[in-house]
Formats: sequence, structure tokens, C-alpha cells
Amino acid sequence: MKKISVRASREYEVLIGSGLTEKAGELVKQVHAPCRTVIVSDSNVAPLWLDKVKVSLEKAGFTCSEYVFPAGEASKNTAELIKMVEFFAESGLTRTDLVVALGGGVTGDMAGFASAIFLRGIEFVQIPTTLLAMTDSSVGGKTAVDLEAGKNLCGAFHQPSLVICDTDTLSTLPAVEFSGGCAEVIKYGVIRDASLFEALEEGLLESDPAEVIARCVGIKRDVVEADEFDKGERQLLNFGHTAGHAIEKQSNFTLSHGQSVAMGMIIASLAVGKKEIAQRIAALEDKMGLPSACPYTAELLLPWCMSDKKKAGGSLTLVVPEKIGCCILKKIPAEEVLSFLERGLSR
Amino acid sequence: MKKISVRASREYEVLIGSGLTEKAGELVKQVHAPCRTVIVSDSNVAPLWLDKVKVSLEKAGFTCSEYVFPAGEASKNTAELIKMVEFFAESGLTRTDLVVALGGGVTGDMAGFASAIFLRGIEFVQIPTTLLAMTDSSVGGKTAVDLEAGKNLCGAFHQPSLVICDTDTLSTLPAVEFSGGCAEVIKYGVIRDASLFEALEEGLLESDPAEVIARCVGIKRDVVEADEFDKGERQLLNFGHTAGHAIEKQSNFTLSHGQSVAMGMIIASLAVGKKEIAQRIAALEDKMGLPSACPYTAELLLPWCMSDKKKAGGSLTLVVPEKIGCCILKKIPAEEVLSFLERGLSR
Repeated sequence: MKKISVRASREYEVLIGSGLTEKAGELVKQVHAPCRTVIVSDSNVAPLWLDKVKVSLEKAGFTCSEYVFPAGEASKNTAELIKMVEFFAESGLTRTDLVVALGGGVTGDMAGFASAIFLRGIEFVQIPTTLLAMTDSSVGGKTAVDLEAGKNLCGAFHQPSLVICDTDTLSTLPAVEFSGGCAEVIKYGVIRDASLFEALEEGLLESDPAEVIARCVGIKRDVVEADEFDKGERQLLNFGHTAGHAIEKQSNFTLSHGQSVAMGMIIASLAVGKKEIAQRIAALEDKMGLPSACPYTAELLLPWCMSDKKKAGGSLTLVVPEKIGCCILKKIPAEEVLSFLERGLSR
Repeated sequence: MKKISVRASREYEVLIGSGLTEKAGELVKQVHAPCRTVIVSDSNVAPLWLDKVKVSLEKAGFTCSEYVFPAGEASKNTAELIKMVEFFAESGLTRTDLVVALGGGVTGDMAGFASAIFLRGIEFVQIPTTLLAMTDSSVGGKTAVDLEAGKNLCGAFHQPSLVICDTDTLSTLPAVEFSGGCAEVIKYGVIRDASLFEALEEGLLESDPAEVIARCVGIKRDVVEADEFDKGERQLLNFGHTAGHAIEKQSNFTLSHGQSVAMGMIIASLAVGKKEIAQRIAALEDKMGLPSACPYTAELLLPWCMSDKKKAGGSLTLVVPEKIGCCILKKIPAEEVLSFLERGLSR
């Protein structure tokens, strides 16, 4: 079992290894005395993993209720959020109790946000079951739901008390979901770690997924610790995400987050004239089953970019690569976003 | 103009005096550069004060939108909250923009919570227009809405950037609202300041409201600074509130928060055998137009107390007086709450 310690406004550990869901109870018990808990999961993950986690938690002395919501990005809305919070109240959760988020990014985002606002904040544990959630959303404390007006526009910073990444859960992950997670993994290489990028080109994800996850979490930890509340450096993690979010929305979620970010990274690279970087990223994406060519025009993507919350007072902060392993923030005025997208889409 | 500085996770000032709404623009400008802002108010306060504030803000260079919701405790729900957050998005507020909450406790709680979760938190300014909001809810950063299951069960800690208390607004306050605020004022005397309590008995609130508000805010500031996240001492501020919230709910809000807390303080005093304290509080309440006798039985109030969020793992933390000027926390097991209420209701 690998262990990464995160020191944000709360200190916590990310545990990575095989067979960890079955040990969830004893692992959680090390950070929180047995209490009442609600296990939140979605309709895809619950049938596969919920019982294992519940049995383990109950064996360790926790009293468990289950809350299962319909799987999919479309559930990440305010109505589902409020239903979840009302369920916490009905279950009798108090300030000293615990929420366990078991599933992918949507589950973690929603259960995390619900935990952040229920009774003005109770503790929660993340058990991510997707590569994307393990390497990205379960660490760092960003939680959110979508508004009508756009993705992730409503949320909170709320750090988990523990993150348990069981690599076994990746075996039940649909291929398209796994490859979606690969986009974030590639992202870490591009923004911070050329040697990780090279190792991925050489097949490290296939041979030792726990090692790749640990390195990604380590990078995310470093960035989050330097900028917990997303005022500066943390924005590096948005590489590929400004265009990516726009693509995801424009596709009405028929393209996944990972697929969209894969395209977004190519756009961000080409937009600043880094054709070689774009080619190397595209080759790795192709190897990992990810698309690299965006099917939409700049005009279609523009309105989504402009409603993105990373827009601050008439300008947009973009993340662009200098070389593999090093990205920088680039603030551009709103009126230049269209030509940025156009350059990014010309191959 | 009186000025109280609060040092919580954010440092800010509470300004108290006459004629401050007309200076809102220049006052806000001292803490936040001109930007886009949404002024949130309710249907009672908006016709009286919104234009004054808006004109002043626009004169200082702010771009203002208005969001007016139906006045009353019944609006403090999740549906109204989400409508407000969606309006922030539609208005194009970005992370560096500002929300201005103009009104009583409901307005401050809702606009504060909406600001806390929109884009994971943007700044907001409180312009409380009731005695209750000036002395209590606008300072300290607690924001919330009600759930189906109970009052204030969903919220966030989010400190304002500035609080502007214009004592002129108290002149447009209905008598029942003003007396409601008196309950919180009395509370500060009982929990922390015997000399304030005596001054109130001698009529200080009538002769110098700004002085009373400043002393109350000063006490609240001290308590909040010692315990921003409500883990201990801050619970002192709940004197009268456990029974008070139950009374408010049981009355289906036909009794106001202040009236309910007025009764709750008597209950908490009698429950621990402090008959003389109860009599002195009741006399002051009577003078200020507040009721002191609770019309409900212990059995009716019990279920509401048990759903209160201050319940932690099977026990309830109550605030009880030792003497005027000094209250203590008393943790009692859930099964003793009924007899606590019964003692509190026997006069």
C-alpha cells in the first residue's frame, strides 16, 4: 500500500493499493471513531462495491445507511444535491458523523459538497473507483455541482478526512471510463513531470497502475498545498480544461470529461504554437484510447468558455505548455478567446 | 460612526451609525474595488432602502443588479437559495465580484450562503436593517437555509468583507421586529456582560441604540474570534436557542425568532433552577415588548429539539446561566431533554 500525505487546511492521507475496499472499515477507523455514516454511491458502482464497503465498515463498528443516486453527469445538479442533504438529515447524521463517497468524480463531488454544507460541514471519506477520481477529483477538496448556467458553478472547498484508492475497482471500470482517466494522468506529466510522461509512453500505467496513481496524487498534492483555494498555481491543474469543459457541455455529455480534456490539451498546445508537444500528447492519447481531435468549431465552444467560472472580470486565465513537464498561466482578454480557440483547432 | 474590527479567517469591520446606507458606496469601495455586484433584498426592505444603496454604490463605480425575494422565514429554503445562486450566474458575477445583502437575518443568511457556494465562494457585504441582524446574524460568518428536517441544517461558514449597520433603518422596522431583536440584545447581557444587562434595564437601548449595538457586536466578535467554527465557546451564543428554535418551528413561524428566543431563555434559566435570573430576564423582556411564557408543552417541543443540529452523537449541548453575565455549556444525554424542558416550563 502506498501512502501520500496531504497538508491542506486539514491533513489527510491518500492510500493506494489492491484490496483496500475490504479493509475500508479498519482504515477509516484510524481517522474517525465508529459513528453513524451514510455511504453515497451511484447506480453503477453500488451493485459492484457498496456491499463490500458496508460490510467492512460495519465490522469496524460503524452504523451505515446507503444513498444511491442515478449514475451519470446529469445527476450532478442542485436538485440531486438537496435530496442528498435531506437524506443526511433524515438519517440522523450529526456534526460528529461521517459521509463515505464511493464512486467516480460525480459521486465524490456531490457527496463532498453535501458534506460541506450539511450542518455547515461534516467529515467525509473518499473511496474513488475510477482512475479519474483517484488521480484528480478525490484529492484537493474541490467539490461542486453544476448550475443551469454551467459546470461546477456551485460548490465548496472541503477536504476529505481520508482517501482510499483500491486499484481493484479499476477492473470493473468500462474501457471508456478508464481511458477518460488517462487524460488526467497525461495532464500531470505535461504540467509538472516529464519523466512521468516518458514512463507513460513506455507503458507504466499498464505495468504498475498504483505507481502512476501515486505519482499523479503526489503532483496534485504539491500543487494543492501551494494554493489550496485556487488563487494561482492550482490553476495549472486546469490544463486542457477550459476548452475541455466547453467541449463536454457542447456534446451534451456524450463526450466524457476525460475525452473532452484530451481534446482540450491539444487545443491549448496548438493555440500557443506548440505543435510538437501537441503531437506527442496526441500520440499518447491515441495509445490510451483517447480522441485528440475536437469535432466542434471555435464559434460553438466560445459561449461555453465565457460562462466558465475561471473567467475573472472580463479576462480568462488559460494554461498553456512551455514544454512537456512545464506549463504556465496565460491571462487573455475575453475578446481574444475566439482566436485562441481558432488557433487551437487548426491542425 | 462606531467601528468594531473582527479577526476571523477574514478580517473585517462592522460600522455602526446613522446615515450609513447613503454612504454605502464609498464605504464598500474602501474594502473592494468597484466591480459587478448583486444587491439581494426581500420584498419588505427593497422598497424602503434598496434604491438608496444602489444609487450610492453606482455613484462609487459599482455596476448593480437587484435580486428581491419574498419576505419571510418561509423563503429561507433550498429552492429559494438555488434560484438566487442561478441569478448570480445569469448576472455574470465572477470570482472577483461582490454580493451585497440588504435586509434582516433571512436575507443575510441566504445571500451569505449563496455567496459561499457560488463559484466556491465570492465576497459579500452585509447591510443589516434589523436590530436582530445587526447584533447577531450579520457578524460571525454563519450562513444557512432550512431543510425540510429542520432550521439552519444546511449552510456554510463565510465571513463578510464588511458589515454596515445604519441605525436609521431601525426606524422603518415594525415594532414586533424591533422587540424581536431585543431578545438577542438581552442574551448578550446574560451570557457575558452584567453591566450591559443593567444598562438595558436603565433604558440604554432607547437612548443610544448605536452604543448597544456596538457592545453586542463586540461580545459576539470576542466569542467568534475564540471559536470561529463553533466547536465550543461559540455555543454560548445559543443561549435560549435550543428551546427557541423548537418554539419557532412548533409555532410554524407565527412566533418570530426573537419572541421564541425570549421564551427559550426563560426555559433554560428555570430548567437549572435559576428562578431569580428568569424573573429578571422576564421583566426586561416585558419592558421591551417580548413575551416570556411559552405556550407549548415539553412533549410538543421535544421532537424539534432532537432534530436540532447542535445534537452531537446522542447528546445535546445546552447553554444555561450561572448568573447574569455568565453562562456555561451543559451537555445532557438525549433522554434527559424532556425533563429539562419540563423543568423549564414549570413556573
